[in-house]
Amino acid sequence: MVHTLSVVVFLKRNTTDMEEGDKVADLFRRADRGDRSALARLISLIEREKEVLSFVPEGLRTKGTNSYLIGMTGAPGAGKSTLTDRLIEWYRRQDDEVAVLAIDPTSPFSGGAILGDRVRMQSHALDSKVYIRSMATRGSLGGLAVAVPITLRVLQLVSFDEVIVETVGVGQVEVDIVGSSDSTIVVLNPLWGDSIQANKAGLLEIADVFVINKADRDGVRQTRRDLDAMLDLSEPKKWRPPIIETVASDGQGVAELGSALAAHRAFLVDSGEINRKREKRASEEFTKATLRLFERSLKNSGDFVRLHQSVKEGEIEPTRAAQEVIDKILRN
Amino acid sequence: MVHTLSVVVFLKRNTTDMEEGDKVADLFRRADRGDRSALARLISLIEREKEVLSFVPEGLRTKGTNSYLIGMTGAPGAGKSTLTDRLIEWYRRQDDEVAVLAIDPTSPFSGGAILGDRVRMQSHALDSKVYIRSMATRGSLGGLAVAVPITLRVLQLVSFDEVIVETVGVGQVEVDIVGSSDSTIVVLNPLWGDSIQANKAGLLEIADVFVINKADRDGVRQTRRDLDAMLDLSEPKKWRPPIIETVASDGQGVAELGSALAAHRAFLVDSGEINRKREKRASEEFTKATLRLFERSLKNSGDFVRLHQSVKEGEIEPTRAAQEVIDKILRN
Repeated sequence: MVHTLSVVVFLKRNTTDMEEGDKVADLFRRADRGDRSALARLISLIEREKEVLSFVPEGLRTKGTNSYLIGMTGAPGAGKSTLTDRLIEWYRRQDDEVAVLAIDPTSPFSGGAILGDRVRMQSHALDSKVYIRSMATRGSLGGLAVAVPITLRVLQLVSFDEVIVETVGVGQVEVDIVGSSDSTIVVLNPLWGDSIQANKAGLLEIADVFVINKADRDGVRQTRRDLDAMLDLSEPKKWRPPIIETVASDGQGVAELGSALAAHRAFLVDSGEINRKREKRASEEFTKATLRLFERSLKNSGDFVRLHQSVKEGEIEPTRAAQEVIDKILRN
Repeated sequence: MVHTLSVVVFLKRNTTDMEEGDKVADLFRRADRGDRSALARLISLIEREKEVLSFVPEGLRTKGTNSYLIGMTGAPGAGKSTLTDRLIEWYRRQDDEVAVLAIDPTSPFSGGAILGDRVRMQSHALDSKVYIRSMATRGSLGGLAVAVPITLRVLQLVSFDEVIVETVGVGQVEVDIVGSSDSTIVVLNPLWGDSIQANKAGLLEIADVFVINKADRDGVRQTRRDLDAMLDLSEPKKWRPPIIETVASDGQGVAELGSALAAHRAFLVDSGEINRKREKRASEEFTKATLRLFERSLKNSGDFVRLHQSVKEGEIEPTRAAQEVIDKILRN
């Protein structure tokens, strides 16, 4: 019923859209068969804010539910890229296909060398079962907030067994993106006690698995103690995040991390939590896309343009002007 | 003309608002006379997304133009808080009143100890001419994007000579906030060459003054060379960001930083750039407030609520549903 309505609205808008839709559906089919240039074109369409997900061919529509979405975040320099690299190897040994979406920051402060990261991941460049793509946060926040979740869903739809999303920046947008994955890995280094204490709440909220990377350095035991104390103090949940020690540079602990992820995934499935997570992602995508479309429509609003001018000339308070725009648009 | 219209709309909405407006105007007057509890109440109203700036008393309205807005950002652990502390001292020696707004991250990865920072800044707690407030990024991004610029304007209006905004997180939202100040300080440490190279564009865009803090460590000359090379390669602007070396922990280089800021401020005034910056901030505030009000109005939209349900049940693609909501709202 809702679908029918959707198609009617859509046909009324522009009949040439339908041809576009056929082309997009074809890109999906080709991407699903492993055609990387078709996949790249799909993602480019998403970056240009073209609608693609309405044109997923029927056969693919439910496929994404078998794909596992992993988020990774942590301080700059904590070793996330090396760890991602090791995780790719781990899943490749099981003959899985793996995609990585790396969110590059606008900010100049990554700590870790971004170019170095990309180069490092090139070790998989000749492996046709691995796809690595980065997406810059430069430009509109609204655009990014919508493009990233859609790209992740596309990667899940076109047959990747694991999709890993990794951020370099550690601001709110970046944490939001990673935190809504099926499983979220939070990467720390030894001797991070202070900041962990200070930021307790934020950490607990998003971590499903903690990794203490560079675990060959001093302070591992203290960091583990801090994390454990923190988890003890927090509200008990059904899943207590395990703490895995790794030395990503030589692969130490990666198998344990792989097992911890598998255990969390099993927990998500058994508890039905995985459906709740997907529903939450769909819900956020809907809200963000609505806001984004509204934002894009504003430049065609006469009221907005006129009041924008008054704001620039200092004739009216920006927030008061915003209230007027909204009153006019919603009253009409 | 626009103002009259604004008042009419406003009176129609709710007559009791007018009394609220009187109260807010009174808070402004008291805050301007140095009443910190009145100022705290104003900021709490902003955090709860109440409109305050429409009620600025006439006498205060143009006052903020003499206030200087400084943004500070940099990698976690680069020493931003200590530097802020030293800048406060520097301006206090000129008998200026200084306000600091510290944006705390949702993210657990600050690197520097946030609690420690707040404690450190307590050295000014007994100085009635210094006001330090932190604002958490937790919660809605839309809310934060609006609350921070409004708070900064309020601090400028109520007689602070300098207003410093400092972020701990280094994601896109945080960089946006700091980057629209009058003068933006980017704090680096020695031996950051790689990431600077990699993130060239982002750095150049927001920095008005570079600080190499912890300049008593090795690698200062290399970092300076990297920065200089980067600036040479970039499109020439009228203002070339100077590179200041500091050791914030013992105050070294802070006077030079103060002078560099004064020079940049003079440049902004002489070139008229300061008005362009203010206009840009007002313009962004207007757009963000419009989006935020729209976001808040969505939960009262029957179409939004109904389609939200369909999205959750997997009956319709989130982005397609978003298009329907916008079509209905804008068509009405």
